[in-house]
Amino acid sequence: MSTYADRLAALRAQLSEQKLDGFVVPLTDEHMSEYVGSYAQRLQWLTGFEGSAGSAVVLPAEAAIFTDGRYTLQVRQQVDGAHWSYQAVPETSIAKWLKDHAPEGARIGYDPWLHRRDWVRQATEALAVRGAALVPVADNPIDRIWADRPEPSKARLVVHPERLAGQSSADKRQKVAEWLDGQKADAAVLAALDSIAWTFNVRGTDVAHTPVALAYALVHADGTADLFVAGEKVTSELRQHLGNGVRLHERAAFEEALAGLAGKTVAVDPERSVAAIFEALDRAGAKVVEVRDPTVLPRATKNEAELAGHRAAQERDGAAIARFLKWVEETDGLDELKASDRLEAIRREDPSLKDLSFDSISGFGPNGAIVHYRSSEKTNRAFEPGSLYLIDSGGQYEDGTTDITRTVAIGEPTAEMRDRFTRVLKGMIAVATAVFPKGTKGGQLDSFARRPLWEAGLDYAHGTGHGVGSFLSVHEGPQRIAPVGGAYAGGDEALAEGMILSNEPGYYKAGEYGIRIENLILVKRVEVEGAEKEMLGFETLTFAPIDRRLIVAEMLSKAERRWVDEYYAAVMQRIGPSLGAEERAWLERACAPL
Amino acid sequence: MSTYADRLAALRAQLSEQKLDGFVVPLTDEHMSEYVGSYAQRLQWLTGFEGSAGSAVVLPAEAAIFTDGRYTLQVRQQVDGAHWSYQAVPETSIAKWLKDHAPEGARIGYDPWLHRRDWVRQATEALAVRGAALVPVADNPIDRIWADRPEPSKARLVVHPERLAGQSSADKRQKVAEWLDGQKADAAVLAALDSIAWTFNVRGTDVAHTPVALAYALVHADGTADLFVAGEKVTSELRQHLGNGVRLHERAAFEEALAGLAGKTVAVDPERSVAAIFEALDRAGAKVVEVRDPTVLPRATKNEAELAGHRAAQERDGAAIARFLKWVEETDGLDELKASDRLEAIRREDPSLKDLSFDSISGFGPNGAIVHYRSSEKTNRAFEPGSLYLIDSGGQYEDGTTDITRTVAIGEPTAEMRDRFTRVLKGMIAVATAVFPKGTKGGQLDSFARRPLWEAGLDYAHGTGHGVGSFLSVHEGPQRIAPVGGAYAGGDEALAEGMILSNEPGYYKAGEYGIRIENLILVKRVEVEGAEKEMLGFETLTFAPIDRRLIVAEMLSKAERRWVDEYYAAVMQRIGPSLGAEERAWLERACAPL
Repeated sequence: MSTYADRLAALRAQLSEQKLDGFVVPLTDEHMSEYVGSYAQRLQWLTGFEGSAGSAVVLPAEAAIFTDGRYTLQVRQQVDGAHWSYQAVPETSIAKWLKDHAPEGARIGYDPWLHRRDWVRQATEALAVRGAALVPVADNPIDRIWADRPEPSKARLVVHPERLAGQSSADKRQKVAEWLDGQKADAAVLAALDSIAWTFNVRGTDVAHTPVALAYALVHADGTADLFVAGEKVTSELRQHLGNGVRLHERAAFEEALAGLAGKTVAVDPERSVAAIFEALDRAGAKVVEVRDPTVLPRATKNEAELAGHRAAQERDGAAIARFLKWVEETDGLDELKASDRLEAIRREDPSLKDLSFDSISGFGPNGAIVHYRSSEKTNRAFEPGSLYLIDSGGQYEDGTTDITRTVAIGEPTAEMRDRFTRVLKGMIAVATAVFPKGTKGGQLDSFARRPLWEAGLDYAHGTGHGVGSFLSVHEGPQRIAPVGGAYAGGDEALAEGMILSNEPGYYKAGEYGIRIENLILVKRVEVEGAEKEMLGFETLTFAPIDRRLIVAEMLSKAERRWVDEYYAAVMQRIGPSLGAEERAWLERACAPL
Repeated sequence: MSTYADRLAALRAQLSEQKLDGFVVPLTDEHMSEYVGSYAQRLQWLTGFEGSAGSAVVLPAEAAIFTDGRYTLQVRQQVDGAHWSYQAVPETSIAKWLKDHAPEGARIGYDPWLHRRDWVRQATEALAVRGAALVPVADNPIDRIWADRPEPSKARLVVHPERLAGQSSADKRQKVAEWLDGQKADAAVLAALDSIAWTFNVRGTDVAHTPVALAYALVHADGTADLFVAGEKVTSELRQHLGNGVRLHERAAFEEALAGLAGKTVAVDPERSVAAIFEALDRAGAKVVEVRDPTVLPRATKNEAELAGHRAAQERDGAAIARFLKWVEETDGLDELKASDRLEAIRREDPSLKDLSFDSISGFGPNGAIVHYRSSEKTNRAFEPGSLYLIDSGGQYEDGTTDITRTVAIGEPTAEMRDRFTRVLKGMIAVATAVFPKGTKGGQLDSFARRPLWEAGLDYAHGTGHGVGSFLSVHEGPQRIAPVGGAYAGGDEALAEGMILSNEPGYYKAGEYGIRIENLILVKRVEVEGAEKEMLGFETLTFAPIDRRLIVAEMLSKAERRWVDEYYAAVMQRIGPSLGAEERAWLERACAPL
């Protein structure tokens, strides 16, 4: 097997052959996916970096890898500093770095199927300052040298039944057609994999942890659609499910189909579609309307069937968590990997579990302070008394996607740990109990979660909540509870009835311990007597014990204490019945009033 | 005197003479000022609208006036609906309206000295859709038909002494020079009137309520400057104060001076400079760097001398307010105008008061519910028992600018009024006591003020806080406590030590009463034991009684109650000593612990 240094050298030779002076390597796929199939793991193949977000630039004499604050430590452990310089985003963007480092007059290559058009514009402008050019490549140079590159997945698509989806694909497409009418457009490009899975009520296994299939789609003003997906992935059951209104084509035929839209008005989402799609439409002479993918909001606002499924999945998932926490409390000699393996095994007893919703973050002590930690044989820590264990995990159940974090004491926690835990809990309660007018954006609620930490001079360096799909992406847009203008988009999106979000403040003491408490919450209408506006609030969807040994009851207000006691009672009521007698007895102790 | 219908007809005739099909009439001046001199009140002259923000478009067959939510009622009272259609911003922008209403192929005029360049770009693009063009005019057509248009003010500039400014003008210019060096630029354009007043330590009386003088300036990389101001406004004292480093020119010579910057790199603030400045520099062949005016942040972060002045002004202003509130409590037969006249008279007893900082908002009962109410003979309400009186006012003292709102009970308030008042107070306390990491933006604190109202299904339709100058603008950027993406910019600006803001949540029950409590607050460093970050918080700067009859003590937390009692004690301590015996006795009752 070649070394990373060999690969970098091979890429430089390949670039030279393609008459390029440099190349940009993002971590995404042709659908701007957050998680990608192994065939698209070019960044990892080239650099060794295993984080979930990053990018790289290779020039003749230097190379740089760009990661955000979550991966500051990890990138230095995994990527060789002798060959790569480490760059922090958003402080240093690729465009900015290229402006300072690209050789004058250079030709820097990029794969137009892996970048947004606004990125192409910015980088082009930045390089122009150096007299250099950004050049689209037809053949990705990494694919040319990556000998054992995996094939894209050939897994079959499966039907997501209407009893879980709550709405037929034909109905969903009809809504898109009505929307196209309002936009005076003839067709909408769907490029995001979860948009396609949702619209056609199908699921796949092409991407780890996200049940989507590699495909493109065009939905037309008459409610029919073209679905572009590899023929080997299509079953007769799927054909029957899709019906006459959906024409099936090879995924590879998508670009050609765009060329056939000459003279049409086509709606394309610039956030969710790569530059190559716009370029193909421009070449075809189609009129492009840049507008958000029309399925984004309907998908984010769950219907009653999706919510019923989600609630059922949460009860099963909460019971699994409770059984796991009892086991952690009663078992000696644990370590991070043993613990996360055990939780996975418990979850997998449920046949409706199709996958984990992400790689579990199972961190003991100092590893718990690494926000996006992933334990390995090398980093695995044995549990020792006097610290905290943080487990952030979730399941992809066919009826719902879960995401939960619990932090528990191993042995006797310190007074500081209990103080910090209680502040995090107060922040989580402040979000869970928020009531706000319709139209309020997630970014307006974020500080409620931070205030109890701020009062002690503390904070956490991540957002407070992300959207969650219905047996789809565990990170689903457009909404987010996070400061506007921060590292992630979505804080400026108005929260709407039916949206599911996480509520997950934390506190991380580097080198010592980490705390995070995460429940999922549902945006719902709230009736307030005498209200002058339509008010929204949250229903907590996650039911699992919160470690009472870490709560300083005296630090809670009366209302906060009541919230905890009511939450404990709800946990008992929701997940108690599905537990065995011994487990139920444990849960009763874990959930006794404070 | 001509009617508004006559004026509109005259403008249309004038447009036809200038070969224009339409004209855009903003409410600003050549400096993008919020408040403008009478010579620039073209919108009011044309339409009769007396609000502080708005704009109009005149086409051959129709005319529209654009105002924001504050003026929805007022514009309908003041502007004739037979000739004008009412448009709401930001929902309908001028560009959007023009796109739908401009005749095909039309030439729509604009005065390039009264618009930002980004507005020109947007409107040009919008009109292009209709095949219409946006055309700059050299002669403003309104000025051609406005026979009795006032001359720009000839008032003399006065020196703002260094003991109050805390820094010499030469030092300030030196800092700009160092900044220019970092920007690799030769000169900075200062177009905002408060930037110029601050940089040169001068004040003027050309604009109501804001002590600035009509001028432009260029600051050069060697620390010298060119100041463009009408010669008749310059005294020998001013010349001496400015010294050799400042070259004086007529204001009318500014455009010509821009033409002389050929080949230079010039920093221009696109938010604070009109399109004509960019166009002149482009024509001259200067290289323009679009960047924020370098005096904005130094001006916003007050120095020790400015803060000492501000605190002194607040003590005098607070004493004036206390005397006024006692008088209101003890005087029968009051009305809105009598009350605001009395407050102004009390303030004017202080010789350091140069002006009010804005037209007082003196609203009784239903008029208090109009956020930007201005009482007149026509709307004046007599005080009657059983409602609330809201007074929002401020003084331009030579050592500081104040802005305070108090709401007091007239007769016996209802339980609902007391509940609402207490919620507003809780919100104000939540902001006043916030502690937050350095880098936090004002928008992140806004919801703290709203939460107690949200819990009752209520809200207020304005921001929570604006910046305040040092004997300068009472609305001073760049900071603001308001949701990001709302009607006003600034919520995304990081709060920094030394910034002064207002803290003014409210509640308005249309047709019944209004509540607002406003103190000014100072951003300062806060020492928190064990803090892991540099933390900031607020010091309250305003000292005047908050009506105890409207506070429901049982609704306050222990900490909130302590805040009120400590605030009352501070009011006694700060303003008590300057009051007479009888007034002090009243204040002692008004400020006894809850």
